[in-house]
Amino acid sequence: MLINCVLYQEGRKVRDIPMDENSCWTAEHEDSFVWVALKDATPEELAIVQRQFGLHELAVEDALHGHQRPKVEEYGDTLFAVLHTVELTPTDELTTGEVDIFVGRNFVLSVRNRSRQNLLQVRERSEREPHMLRHGPAFVFYALMDAVVDRYFPIIDRLETELEQVEDQMFEPGTSQANIQRLYELKREIGTVRHAVAPLIDAVHKLFSGRVPAVCENNREYFRDVFDHLLRMQASLDNLRDTIGTAIQVNLANVAIEESVVNKRLAAWAGIFAVISAFAGIWGMNFKYMPELEWHFGYPLALATIAIVCVILYRQFKKSGWL
Amino acid sequence: MLINCVLYQEGRKVRDIPMDENSCWTAEHEDSFVWVALKDATPEELAIVQRQFGLHELAVEDALHGHQRPKVEEYGDTLFAVLHTVELTPTDELTTGEVDIFVGRNFVLSVRNRSRQNLLQVRERSEREPHMLRHGPAFVFYALMDAVVDRYFPIIDRLETELEQVEDQMFEPGTSQANIQRLYELKREIGTVRHAVAPLIDAVHKLFSGRVPAVCENNREYFRDVFDHLLRMQASLDNLRDTIGTAIQVNLANVAIEESVVNKRLAAWAGIFAVISAFAGIWGMNFKYMPELEWHFGYPLALATIAIVCVILYRQFKKSGWL
Amino acid sequence: MLINCVLYQEGRKVRDIPMDENSCWTAEHEDSFVWVALKDATPEELAIVQRQFGLHELAVEDALHGHQRPKVEEYGDTLFAVLHTVELTPTDELTTGEVDIFVGRNFVLSVRNRSRQNLLQVRERSEREPHMLRHGPAFVFYALMDAVVDRYFPIIDRLETELEQVEDQMFEPGTSQANIQRLYELKREIGTVRHAVAPLIDAVHKLFSGRVPAVCENNREYFRDVFDHLLRMQASLDNLRDTIGTAIQVNLANVAIEESVVNKRLAAWAGIFAVISAFAGIWGMNFKYMPELEWHFGYPLALATIAIVCVILYRQFKKSGWL
Amino acid sequence: MLINCVLYQEGRKVRDIPMDENSCWTAEHEDSFVWVALKDATPEELAIVQRQFGLHELAVEDALHGHQRPKVEEYGDTLFAVLHTVELTPTDELTTGEVDIFVGRNFVLSVRNRSRQNLLQVRERSEREPHMLRHGPAFVFYALMDAVVDRYFPIIDRLETELEQVEDQMFEPGTSQANIQRLYELKREIGTVRHAVAPLIDAVHKLFSGRVPAVCENNREYFRDVFDHLLRMQASLDNLRDTIGTAIQVNLANVAIEESVVNKRLAAWAGIFAVISAFAGIWGMNFKYMPELEWHFGYPLALATIAIVCVILYRQFKKSGWL
Amino acid sequence: MLINCVLYQEGRKVRDIPMDENSCWTAEHEDSFVWVALKDATPEELAIVQRQFGLHELAVEDALHGHQRPKVEEYGDTLFAVLHTVELTPTDELTTGEVDIFVGRNFVLSVRNRSRQNLLQVRERSEREPHMLRHGPAFVFYALMDAVVDRYFPIIDRLETELEQVEDQMFEPGTSQANIQRLYELKREIGTVRHAVAPLIDAVHKLFSGRVPAVCENNREYFRDVFDHLLRMQASLDNLRDTIGTAIQVNLANVAIEESVVNKRLAAWAGIFAVISAFAGIWGMNFKYMPELEWHFGYPLALATIAIVCVILYRQFKKSGWL
Repeated sequence: MLINCVLYQEGRKVRDIPMDENSCWTAEHEDSFVWVALKDATPEELAIVQRQFGLHELAVEDALHGHQRPKVEEYGDTLFAVLHTVELTPTDELTTGEVDIFVGRNFVLSVRNRSRQNLLQVRERSEREPHMLRHGPAFVFYALMDAVVDRYFPIIDRLETELEQVEDQMFEPGTSQANIQRLYELKREIGTVRHAVAPLIDAVHKLFSGRVPAVCENNREYFRDVFDHLLRMQASLDNLRDTIGTAIQVNLANVAIEESVVNKRLAAWAGIFAVISAFAGIWGMNFKYMPELEWHFGYPLALATIAIVCVILYRQFKKSGWL
Repeated sequence: MLINCVLYQEGRKVRDIPMDENSCWTAEHEDSFVWVALKDATPEELAIVQRQFGLHELAVEDALHGHQRPKVEEYGDTLFAVLHTVELTPTDELTTGEVDIFVGRNFVLSVRNRSRQNLLQVRERSEREPHMLRHGPAFVFYALMDAVVDRYFPIIDRLETELEQVEDQMFEPGTSQANIQRLYELKREIGTVRHAVAPLIDAVHKLFSGRVPAVCENNREYFRDVFDHLLRMQASLDNLRDTIGTAIQVNLANVAIEESVVNKRLAAWAGIFAVISAFAGIWGMNFKYMPELEWHFGYPLALATIAIVCVILYRQFKKSGWL
Repeated sequence: MLINCVLYQEGRKVRDIPMDENSCWTAEHEDSFVWVALKDATPEELAIVQRQFGLHELAVEDALHGHQRPKVEEYGDTLFAVLHTVELTPTDELTTGEVDIFVGRNFVLSVRNRSRQNLLQVRERSEREPHMLRHGPAFVFYALMDAVVDRYFPIIDRLETELEQVEDQMFEPGTSQANIQRLYELKREIGTVRHAVAPLIDAVHKLFSGRVPAVCENNREYFRDVFDHLLRMQASLDNLRDTIGTAIQVNLANVAIEESVVNKRLAAWAGIFAVISAFAGIWGMNFKYMPELEWHFGYPLALATIAIVCVILYRQFKKSGWL
Repeated sequence: MLINCVLYQEGRKVRDIPMDENSCWTAEHEDSFVWVALKDATPEELAIVQRQFGLHELAVEDALHGHQRPKVEEYGDTLFAVLHTVELTPTDELTTGEVDIFVGRNFVLSVRNRSRQNLLQVRERSEREPHMLRHGPAFVFYALMDAVVDRYFPIIDRLETELEQVEDQMFEPGTSQANIQRLYELKREIGTVRHAVAPLIDAVHKLFSGRVPAVCENNREYFRDVFDHLLRMQASLDNLRDTIGTAIQVNLANVAIEESVVNKRLAAWAGIFAVISAFAGIWGMNFKYMPELEWHFGYPLALATIAIVCVILYRQFKKSGWL
Repeated sequence: MLINCVLYQEGRKVRDIPMDENSCWTAEHEDSFVWVALKDATPEELAIVQRQFGLHELAVEDALHGHQRPKVEEYGDTLFAVLHTVELTPTDELTTGEVDIFVGRNFVLSVRNRSRQNLLQVRERSEREPHMLRHGPAFVFYALMDAVVDRYFPIIDRLETELEQVEDQMFEPGTSQANIQRLYELKREIGTVRHAVAPLIDAVHKLFSGRVPAVCENNREYFRDVFDHLLRMQASLDNLRDTIGTAIQVNLANVAIEESVVNKRLAAWAGIFAVISAFAGIWGMNFKYMPELEWHFGYPLALATIAIVCVILYRQFKKSGWL
């Protein structure tokens, strides 16, 4: 589905181009370029832009099939970038979409797939800043990438908050199972975000360091800025992952400790009742000559004896922390 | 066993060559090449193609003995590639086979070993696209490699599905042992696929980056595409492996938690019955003067007392989650 | 908030510059430079220094928003460095602040955020050593960085001391849960310090090795010294982290061992009381002909038998370490 | 001890050289070389060959003291290689020996230490293939290295077989302790083989890639073949090591699961007997008015009641998998 | 404290130089050099040698403060090396000291701190070998480094021996806690040695490979020899560390297995006594009509029944390995 197809010259919008216009979209002027935004593009739409911009077959195929890993590839003068979007569904789950970007000397094409977030505000902000937009397609490329990448931050913050919630109740008894389940899910979600961030780091590095693609030459510092954000995210994700590993271990230890506490309590009560049963058993024997059975206060004395022994045991256990 | 041996010129089939033809197979024309496909090749067959194409002794030995790790090696002008095929047997187990490919300026030779999947559709598709096939042996090399590598995807998908099945029942009680066993087997299978994928990554990287073998020079982008697929697979496999490690840990924790639950329940019931026994024991003592024994409603009262205490205990345990 | 803004020439202070002075601050002389120190800078203050020193928009934005990872970036002739400060709050928790430093040919600007420690003594010491200060902005840059980095040492020492405290009581029974909790918190704190140290290592490396920014050219050995401190810290932190991992594992083992001890004791006492109950039960049976029940010393003999068996059992258990 | 000392020319044996011959052994001809094989060499023997071939002091010292790590070093024109042999003793344990090889323009010297396997068949095969042997010392070097390295394969196969044996019985109850002990020993043995393989990989890589020592220049492909074998072994060893780590974890889980099963069964039987005791205790009380005690069929009815309750409990436990 | 300060020429000792001599120590001759050895040097002594040899301020500061990590740094023509000594105290603990070495064109200065081992025999051996000593300061540097590094070997051997002792008793019951404690201490000690070895590897690598400091140019092979020793040590330490990790895990498993054995035994005896109590309880009931109670041999028959059931149970448990 076509979202926009606009011709810009010296940083300002010239006109909208209809998708079915057959003349060459960009032939008009040296410092003009076309910025096309597609959403869930059909093969037909991709065929049109492929013909217009001379895109490489393999790149178009990737854009069509989707499910690529994030990357930036050069096909001759054209750059082809795949970015992942990461979003929260209303039911609080993470889903990933894809934004494919083609950048040439005089065009930018973005194709957004399986994503509910739009990139309209990138265009709006760019059009309000013609002095930036006149840097051409590379600046638009940067602005799109920056918009996609910056949206990872709230997701990572949310994962950190969740981890802190688990940590807050981690040493409370009885929470281990729930904690471990949440930590496991958290780890899976971190994997999803990592999958979007990690491959991009190497890819973006090539846009400002070493042999830089001609089209990005004058925007190195902007791509270094994106790179820096990605590094920061990766550090956070690594830290999260490492902490979750330790947290699972700690929860496992807590399970064992809790069980140990239960076992001690069980042992203590079992001991106390075993003493009662032993006394009762002895005075329940049928020997003919058991003088205390004949005493008038034998029974209350027996009960008192049992009670006293139990109280002593109870205190003993209490003191040693078993009860 | 010979499958095919065909001479192509400018992307079109010229004729089949019989295996026992003694004249030079490729001498005919500058832009012609021979594409030979063998299956479980005998030493005699390999000797014929070695003589025809001047293959290096060490490479032929490797092809004969099999059980090589995936690799791409240069012997002078000739490339020698070893790929692993990974297949599901009817009994749902993974087996690996091997495809050895020799690529020269005017020939491609593929030797398939211990694999039930054939590569015929590669030839069919290539013959339907003469504009591609005229790129020569390097394109055929790419097409074969692409076919072998693309068949890893369904295998990896299956492993991911299996992991998800285990995850779905991971927090249900009583499933830990079965889960751990399946996770262990899954880990072994991942090892098998990794073994096919990982060594290939470095090897394919050399086909499009840095000093590229002359024969692949014009097909860099195609090999980069294969490389990209391999990276994607490796990311999936790494993710799977990491997740399985955590999943085993989580299952271990679940075993401990389940045991803790059982222990608490055991402790609770033991407590209730210990109370019954203690009361019964006391009223079973043989003291002469135990007034309550003489009461007319002593027995029912005793039973009621015991029952009430048990109910109170039961409720208490229920409330604290032990029962 | 402006802390200081001073013009230096040949290593000596010339005069204070008011923040609102509009003339060019540094135009006066070849070997003079301005050293500005801000704290929790407002956008307005940053705008003034940006205009005065021609700072790059992206760097100023980073300084304004804060929460960057430590780094050193070149923007044309200007260096932009982000350092983290790590401090102990009065309640013994770690907090991180940020020091952003801009270094140009004839200025140094430091912006301190969310940090209670000031950097005044850096200025004082520098002004007492004019022969050092005449090295210019690069020396000030080094002195600031050195001051920030050296303050990590006492923090790391404290973490090591804490770990040793945990280690000292690690093999004492009953301490496992507290130990694990402290180890977990320790691990988190190590993460915080690591986060300040690790990214700086690569960044500082570029200040003395390979293509060094022009402004640092003559102070390579000083930056190598900082680099060396950072490496030493990282080694300590890696060691700490590794040790904590093992310590958690050891504590987990201790929990299991302690539980095993409790279990054995429980088993031993249960055995002893089971024997008492068994004897009492047997002599409590109502058979008509049980000769020992008729004996005159039957009861004391029975008690003695039970006591002897219990003592034997007790000794047996004691000998095998169960009690 | 001298094994052989033979002069070869153009790939063919010329004559045996006695160890005490004082004239220069290799002066005779341009394309001749001497191949010396020593076993557990004495300092005197090493002194002779050192003088004859001008070996470097440090290398000779290494050969004398042994216990080096595998390596390949250049001393001027001479190569010095240390290889480890790994052998099974008759009592099925792994021992390591050492083969030190010196390679010069016109000599090869091998010193075998603490190894029961000889390298005679390398010489025999080489002498049968004069067209190979005429490649000179580098070919002999390759042949020796290939022989030593190929003998690692059966050792690794044996380790894999042992692991599979452990895996086959891993999920059978009661085998955990034996499994863990075997896995631990297996891990130690893998360490021994790794120690022979891993350092050699880097060393051999230098013999065919980058700046290759002059003496190996024309045999690159042969050394790459050895390198390939080493990589394959390392992949196997890494896989083994990784699998053993998981297998130990799985066995640990099995211990916990088995214990859980035992605990449940214990709980079930304890419950059943507690019920019997409770009933018996109640009907053993000495209340005066317990009507059912007077019934004629009271006793059989009581026994029946107890039995019925026990059967119900038994079935219940059976159904829930506790028995 | 000054140990020695000697002037050498062409490898031979010329004269001792008193510390307070004010003339230039090394001005006399082209191929002469001064070798100074200090121990726990005072700031005054360091000031003297700094002035004499023109040492860099930062290096002298490092030597004064100590507690550096091992490293080799170039300051202009001078090399500054920090080595750690590792020693066993009489109470069998590891302590680390420090040896700082300054190497210039015509001097060597070693400063030994917190170490009881002296380096005198390095000087003695060197003076006995003038043909080596004439290589100048670089040779002395090598000899000192070699002496320090070689003293790590017995320490590492001792750690390996200790690990083997733990392994020997690892599968004996009841040793787990002691084993784990020893393994933990062992791991800490390995960390100490690692800390001395690991940073030195990179540092020494620069002394024989790539751009070598001028002063070491002619002694590359000697430094490669030290490098090789360090690599060997690191391999041993890595292996130790890895093995300790697994050993802790195995001990943890052993604790669980032992506990499982205790639990089964507990369950078995509990079962046997529960049966006795159940029988006794039933025959202790007060029903009026319990025919067997009236039998003459009822009691012995009852005892026999109980005994037989117990023996059967005992055998059953024995057979299934619970007792």
